[in-house]
Amino acid sequence: MAKPLDPAKLGEFGLIEALRHRARVGGHGWAETIGDDAALLRPRAGQELALTADALVEGVHFRWETTDGKALAHKTLAVNLSDLAAMGARPRGFLLSLALPPIAVPERLDGFVSGLLAASRRWACPLVGGDIVSSPAWMFSVTAVGELPRGKALLRRGARAGDRLMLTGQVGGSALGLALLEAGAASEPAARRFVRRHRKPEPRLEAGQKLRASGLATAALDVSDGVAQDVSHLAAASGVAAEIDVEALPHPRGFADACARLGLDPDVLALSGGEDFELLFSVAAKAPPAAAIAKRLGCPVREIGRLRPGRGVSVLRNGEPIDLQRLGFDHFKPDPLPSDK
Amino acid sequence: MAKPLDPAKLGEFGLIEALRHRARVGGHGWAETIGDDAALLRPRAGQELALTADALVEGVHFRWETTDGKALAHKTLAVNLSDLAAMGARPRGFLLSLALPPIAVPERLDGFVSGLLAASRRWACPLVGGDIVSSPAWMFSVTAVGELPRGKALLRRGARAGDRLMLTGQVGGSALGLALLEAGAASEPAARRFVRRHRKPEPRLEAGQKLRASGLATAALDVSDGVAQDVSHLAAASGVAAEIDVEALPHPRGFADACARLGLDPDVLALSGGEDFELLFSVAAKAPPAAAIAKRLGCPVREIGRLRPGRGVSVLRNGEPIDLQRLGFDHFKPDPLPSDK
Repeated sequence: MAKPLDPAKLGEFGLIEALRHRARVGGHGWAETIGDDAALLRPRAGQELALTADALVEGVHFRWETTDGKALAHKTLAVNLSDLAAMGARPRGFLLSLALPPIAVPERLDGFVSGLLAASRRWACPLVGGDIVSSPAWMFSVTAVGELPRGKALLRRGARAGDRLMLTGQVGGSALGLALLEAGAASEPAARRFVRRHRKPEPRLEAGQKLRASGLATAALDVSDGVAQDVSHLAAASGVAAEIDVEALPHPRGFADACARLGLDPDVLALSGGEDFELLFSVAAKAPPAAAIAKRLGCPVREIGRLRPGRGVSVLRNGEPIDLQRLGFDHFKPDPLPSDK
Repeated sequence: MAKPLDPAKLGEFGLIEALRHRARVGGHGWAETIGDDAALLRPRAGQELALTADALVEGVHFRWETTDGKALAHKTLAVNLSDLAAMGARPRGFLLSLALPPIAVPERLDGFVSGLLAASRRWACPLVGGDIVSSPAWMFSVTAVGELPRGKALLRRGARAGDRLMLTGQVGGSALGLALLEAGAASEPAARRFVRRHRKPEPRLEAGQKLRASGLATAALDVSDGVAQDVSHLAAASGVAAEIDVEALPHPRGFADACARLGLDPDVLALSGGEDFELLFSVAAKAPPAAAIAKRLGCPVREIGRLRPGRGVSVLRNGEPIDLQRLGFDHFKPDPLPSDK
């Protein structure tokens, strides 16, 4: 059985040694991983590297009272790998900066590490290095490295007026899961699917790589801030305006019913709910229909709008613009720093 | 004049845009930097990449009362680049995870960013990506990427019994600087040099790359935890024992006097003081003398001990073993998690 990870007993070096022992990176193109001054990666010829960082902070992005270490670890890695997916990259490995409070409950750390290594195996993305420090609060900061053929990355810019907007999977489910958790209704059978989506999101790694290989996308990113916000990022980076057809947004099964029970507007949640980690991308007007693209990517794809000359994002219902502020949110005001609330 | 960086006014995306504007990465082999889902690096043929992460946390590694943003930013990048130096790598760029408290004083953030970009230019290592999150405390987590010829990294393992231990520069100065700060004696003219060494350390980037190119080192790492501790890391990784000649440890000018005034033992400080960010390395018995190596590396180098068959570290004075515990420290007990205290 693995040693319990008690920071007070193990100290920094003991903890690093235990992580190294548990992570056991074999192959994967790393010449050196945990234990030296830096990890050493040997990129393959003709490839370039994608690097992305994301941190989760206790009390801001999660509370131990409403999560467990395994789900948290899954999510910590997932949010980073989703950024790699959105570039069309294949994960190669990640570094973890682990900030621990002076009294770090060993069971929490142990759960986190188990969950992290399970997620690492699931996505073939080894833990190759990092840092452990003391901190007033728990914080998990991950830098993930991915690889893709040189010059072929899916960028946010590059879309043109006339392009069509596509979305994998469904949106709103993660935000609904969070709302159910906050309403204390997470244990109802109908709630579990949404809560799971919030706590254990799945990055679209395969779809991202297939999309990159297809050459169909003119621009792409992952849906982390909410569809409306992320469409605005794509449009702004590409220098165009965007229209979203709200009735085209794909909801998970049972979504409208669960929203109704909580008094939430399903359209608002679908437009503004973050952390679905789906892929949002644009294709040329003459590209194949969504169903054909779905077949190539191996996952559901829906057409949710289009790009126009100009700037900004409008939301349409049956072709008529609707007032976003009347829907209850304004994504153009200065956004707060990201948190789970 | 650059906009002041007020997180409350700018929000996450405004802050990212301001950082992107100020960082202005040109060339350096990055196809994409701040602004997309991930940064894109194109490694040169025949090179491999070194990746390292280190975080500094408010209240643990620094207090705003005794530091300023510029010095802090310098140090945040320096500790990471020192790890690259210790692999013999040339810095290529870095990612920053910036955790800000709800009321982040704009002047502090502004000072930090100015200092970070100054350090970034100084060491030709651009800010290429990262993440900004809310947090109960300030935290700066950096992942640095360096490049070096494939298969040529300076590793901690590889030293053999009979090899000689070498050290660049001097040790103990940073720990003395911290002690002077804590004693409120930092403003004395004789103190400034040590305080500066503590607050604005200089990674041995050129020496590290020259050492790697020389092929002389059988093992190497940077002195971050203190010479005795770091010698023990090199010895353990290489499966040998080590002897340190305490009288050979190079002290900065005025070191013994300043220690005496604070009632500190200079030998203890030189052996155990951390954060000097010098390079510690081993060379074969028949390698050139320290003076010749110094000439090749372009910095002072002293021979400070040797490796023997066996395990563990002994400290000798005039060839006789001395009791480390009597000197006032035991580096073999479980180390606490790293902090500045």
